[in-house]
Amino acid sequence: MAADRLARFATALGEAGVDAALISHPQDLFYLAGTAQPCNLLVLPGREPVLFARRFGALVRSETWVDRVRDGAGYRAVAAELGLGPGRLGMELDVLPAALYLKAAEAFPSFEILDCSAALLELRAVKDDAEVEALRAAAALFGAVHEAIAAHLREGVAEHELAAEVQRALRRAGHAGLVAQRRWDAALQPEGMLASGPNLATISGGPVTVSGVGLSRAVPFGASDRRVARGDLVNIDLGLNLAGYHADMARTYVVGSASETVAALAAKVRAVQDACLSAIRPGVTAGDVYAAGLDVARAAGVEDVFQGYDGTHGPYVGHGIGLELDEPPVLGPGASARLREGMVLAIEPKLISPAFGAVNLEDDVVVTADGCALLSDLPRSVFVIDAGRAEAVLP
Amino acid sequence: MAADRLARFATALGEAGVDAALISHPQDLFYLAGTAQPCNLLVLPGREPVLFARRFGALVRSETWVDRVRDGAGYRAVAAELGLGPGRLGMELDVLPAALYLKAAEAFPSFEILDCSAALLELRAVKDDAEVEALRAAAALFGAVHEAIAAHLREGVAEHELAAEVQRALRRAGHAGLVAQRRWDAALQPEGMLASGPNLATISGGPVTVSGVGLSRAVPFGASDRRVARGDLVNIDLGLNLAGYHADMARTYVVGSASETVAALAAKVRAVQDACLSAIRPGVTAGDVYAAGLDVARAAGVEDVFQGYDGTHGPYVGHGIGLELDEPPVLGPGASARLREGMVLAIEPKLISPAFGAVNLEDDVVVTADGCALLSDLPRSVFVIDAGRAEAVLP
Repeated sequence: MAADRLARFATALGEAGVDAALISHPQDLFYLAGTAQPCNLLVLPGREPVLFARRFGALVRSETWVDRVRDGAGYRAVAAELGLGPGRLGMELDVLPAALYLKAAEAFPSFEILDCSAALLELRAVKDDAEVEALRAAAALFGAVHEAIAAHLREGVAEHELAAEVQRALRRAGHAGLVAQRRWDAALQPEGMLASGPNLATISGGPVTVSGVGLSRAVPFGASDRRVARGDLVNIDLGLNLAGYHADMARTYVVGSASETVAALAAKVRAVQDACLSAIRPGVTAGDVYAAGLDVARAAGVEDVFQGYDGTHGPYVGHGIGLELDEPPVLGPGASARLREGMVLAIEPKLISPAFGAVNLEDDVVVTADGCALLSDLPRSVFVIDAGRAEAVLP
Repeated sequence: MAADRLARFATALGEAGVDAALISHPQDLFYLAGTAQPCNLLVLPGREPVLFARRFGALVRSETWVDRVRDGAGYRAVAAELGLGPGRLGMELDVLPAALYLKAAEAFPSFEILDCSAALLELRAVKDDAEVEALRAAAALFGAVHEAIAAHLREGVAEHELAAEVQRALRRAGHAGLVAQRRWDAALQPEGMLASGPNLATISGGPVTVSGVGLSRAVPFGASDRRVARGDLVNIDLGLNLAGYHADMARTYVVGSASETVAALAAKVRAVQDACLSAIRPGVTAGDVYAAGLDVARAAGVEDVFQGYDGTHGPYVGHGIGLELDEPPVLGPGASARLREGMVLAIEPKLISPAFGAVNLEDDVVVTADGCALLSDLPRSVFVIDAGRAEAVLP
C-alpha cells in the first residue's frame, strides 16, 4: 500500500542511523505523501510524520494520506517539531539548492545534515503493482508518438515541425506536458530528442548520446529546423509522463526506403537489446546487463559505435524509470547494484556514427521473479515511413 | 557588445571584494560565454577568464567568445587555475545543488564560497539592443498562441486538447520547446498555465496565482481535462522561448459572448496595467509600479480580487524577463530596486475570484529613457471567441 512507503522509509532511515528526514522535492513528496503541492515533509523514525504545507493547506489535506498536516512550512516551524538534537538530519542534497542547505544548517544547528536521496531512491526503485500498471499505461502513450510520426514524417518536413506534431499528439493523449528529472542544469523538451541525418551524430547540450542540436545555441539540443531528406534516419527518444509515471522509449524511422546497411543495423541493435533483456533477472548486477549487451555488440562488430563513437561513448545501456525519467540503477560497466523483482528499467542500446547517423531502440521492462517483461508491445524494429504508413524493417 | 559582459561581471565581482566566480548554469554560461554547452566558467577579476568544457571541447570552441578553453571540467582542474587562496569564490548558490556545493567546499578549501547569482542577475537585468530585439521577437510568438486559441477554443473542447494545439503552434513557430526558470522544485508546461471556468480560481502547485489544476495530482498545475462551457473564461499565461529569450504574456478569452461583468472586469484589469505602464521610467522603484497598480485596483473597487482573493493574493504585479522567465526585479509591495533604462519587465495584473474565475492580462515592456514601450502590439483586451474568430471586448 502506498501509505506504507512512509513507514518503510522511516525504517530505512533508522537502520542508517539517521534521526529524521526533511523532504521537499515534488516527486519525493508525491511518492511518500500522495501530494506534489509545495510542502516540507518531516519523517521521524518511531514517530508520526508531519507534513508542513507551504500554502493552501486545504488542498494539501484533500490530497495527502499523512494525518498530521500543519500550515506554514518555514524551517522555524520544522525546527520546533524536530526538537533540539543533537542528531542527523537527511535532506535531498542532490537537488536542494546550496542556498537552502545553508539556511537549513542555520535553522537546525545541532543537526548534521546529510543526503538521504539515495536511500529514498532505493526504496522508489522497486515498484508496487499499481506503479507497474501506471508505467505500462505511460508506455502505451508511445503509440500516439508512433502514429504522429507515421502521419507527418516525410521528405522536406523540418525536425521541429515533426516535434510539433508529436507534442500535440502526446498532450491530447494525456501526457502531463513535461518530464521530471533530478537535474539542475539540464532539461528536455516534451517531445524528447528528435533528430535526423547528420544531427544524429552531433552530441550537444546535456544528453550524453543522441541529442539533436536544437533550434539555437541557447537550447542546443532537441529538434532543429533541419529538413528531412529521403533515406535519412530519424530518431525519437523521449520521456512519456502519464499522471506522474514515466516511460522512456525510442524508435528509429527512415524516410522512403531502408538500405541494406540500415536493415543490418536494425538487426544488430535489436540483438544487443535482446541480450540485455535475456540477462535481466533478480540478483544479477546492473553491470551484468551492460556486459551482456556489450558482448553481443562486440560479436556483431559494432562495439566501436555502441552508445557512441570516437571517445564519445555513453557508459550505460539503461537505467531505472518511475516518477522521474532517470532513476537508479544505472546499467553501466561494472555497476554493482543488484536487480530486484519489481524494478522497472529502460533498455536503450544505440549505434551512433557520422557514417550513418544513429539507430536507437529503447524499451521498458519490469523485472519479474525469473526474468523480465516488456511494458509495450510495439515492434522493436526500425520503421520505413512511406506515404503515411509505417512498416517494420525486421520481421 | 556581448563579449564585454565578462569584463563587466569581473568588475562587479572585484568591487564586491570577490576574488573569482565559477559559473555553471546554462543560461548564465550562455550570457557570459556565448555557449550553453555543459561547462564551468572561471571568472577572475584582473585575469583572463577560463572556460572548462565538461565534454566536446570542439563544439564549445566553435560557440564561445572566450579565448581560453580547457578540456575537462573537474573541480581539481579548476582549483589548479584558481590558485591556493585564501580568497572569496562566488558560485550560483541559488541553483547549485547542495551536494555540489559541498564538493566545491572540499575542492577549494581555502576559499570562502558565497552566492554570486544576485550580482550576475543584476548585470543581466539591463538588456542591450540586440537582447531587446530578441525579446521583441519572442513576444511576437504570442501571435501563434492567439491564432491557435481562436481556431480551436469552442464549447466542449478540453483544456488539455487546447493546450495541445497551442504547443503545436508554438513549436512550429520556433519556440524552443521549454522555458528556463531558476527553480529547483517547480516547472511549467510549454503552453504555460491554461485553465478555464472554476479552475481559474483554484491555485495549485508551484504558481502563486492562476495555475490551473493539471491532469493529475502528480503534476497538479496547467491544463486539465475539464471541458470548456459556453460563457466560460479561459486564461492562457505562458513563457515564450525564442532562441533563449523569453516573453511572458497572458490573455483572457470567453467562449460565445461576454457578459457585462466580463467587459467591466476587462476594462478594470487594463486600467490597472495602464497605471503600471504609466509609472514605469528610470529611477522609480519596483514598489512604485506595484503601488500605482494597486491604487487603481482600489479606486475601481477590485482590490479584494487583485492578484488573488481571500488571503491568496500574490504580492507582485510583474517581474523582469530575459534568458529566464522570471528575473529580478520583482515588482512587489515596497520593493526598493530602482528601474533602469533597458530593463525588460512583464506587467501582469489579474483579477481572481471564485465568483467569476480570472481575468488575466500580461504584457512585456522595455524601460526607455523617459517611460516604457510595449514589445507586442496585440490588443490588450479580453477576446470573445465565436466560430473561429477572436473579437476584442474593449475598443
